[in-house]
Amino acid sequence: MGDVGLDSILIHDLKIIPTSGGNVMHVMKSSDDVFHEFGEAYFSWIEPGRVKAWKRHKIMTMNLAVPVGSVKFVFFTSPVNFREVIIGENFYKLITVPPGIWYGFSGHSRNSSLILNLADTMHNPDEVERKDCATVDFKW
Amino acid sequence: MGDVGLDSILIHDLKIIPTSGGNVMHVMKSSDDVFHEFGEAYFSWIEPGRVKAWKRHKIMTMNLAVPVGSVKFVFFTSPVNFREVIIGENFYKLITVPPGIWYGFSGHSRNSSLILNLADTMHNPDEVERKDCATVDFKW
Repeated sequence: MGDVGLDSILIHDLKIIPTSGGNVMHVMKSSDDVFHEFGEAYFSWIEPGRVKAWKRHKIMTMNLAVPVGSVKFVFFTSPVNFREVIIGENFYKLITVPPGIWYGFSGHSRNSSLILNLADTMHNPDEVERKDCATVDFKW
Repeated sequence: MGDVGLDSILIHDLKIIPTSGGNVMHVMKSSDDVFHEFGEAYFSWIEPGRVKAWKRHKIMTMNLAVPVGSVKFVFFTSPVNFREVIIGENFYKLITVPPGIWYGFSGHSRNSSLILNLADTMHNPDEVERKDCATVDFKW
């Protein structure tokens, strides 16, 4: 996994379609370049100001969208060089994160924010590495 | 499509995993019986009291989850026999709707509700039939 760089994280604009009664928001189609396989879809809530960090997947590619609120995602491969990306209902984008990258995230809006992960593999604790948040010198 | 009945609509409980900083909510795994293929994922908002109806897919199977708010879904094959199902953050379930069934939905909570559809085909206007809401005698 040593050859995975932060520039392998892809960010795509997603369409919001104004619709009477409530908007429609695209996430992903099977024809999209970033789609390879469906493994699992799940939601994660993140409360305002709270941090969930750090995890690294050995196998899973994550596709992350935030339809409610706003979330700051932070990525690194070496803990001296971080990439920060904020997405949410007002910056509505898809982040594709290949395996091999450490990530964490924090709630960045006044209310709780909702993350959808469309992952290419099912959740499996054996393929997830964890570091305690405090072991990495990053100012959230 | 004449042999599709309302009992072909499947409803499954979904797990909510209490997590410090914000809960995790399951939606679907590739190993689930109801999963066949990934076509497209998209969100639809529905405002309180608003109705979006009626549509029928010729090909698409929909898998519907509501992580925010509460939504009343109404289904029929013949407009004298309706099935109503309410799902939402407090009744967190997955509804699987095969093609051939007319459906509509309304916002059933104080704020807007969010629906995720994990569909087995991509959106294609040619496979969607529509009826004006008022042409069906249903009391929302």
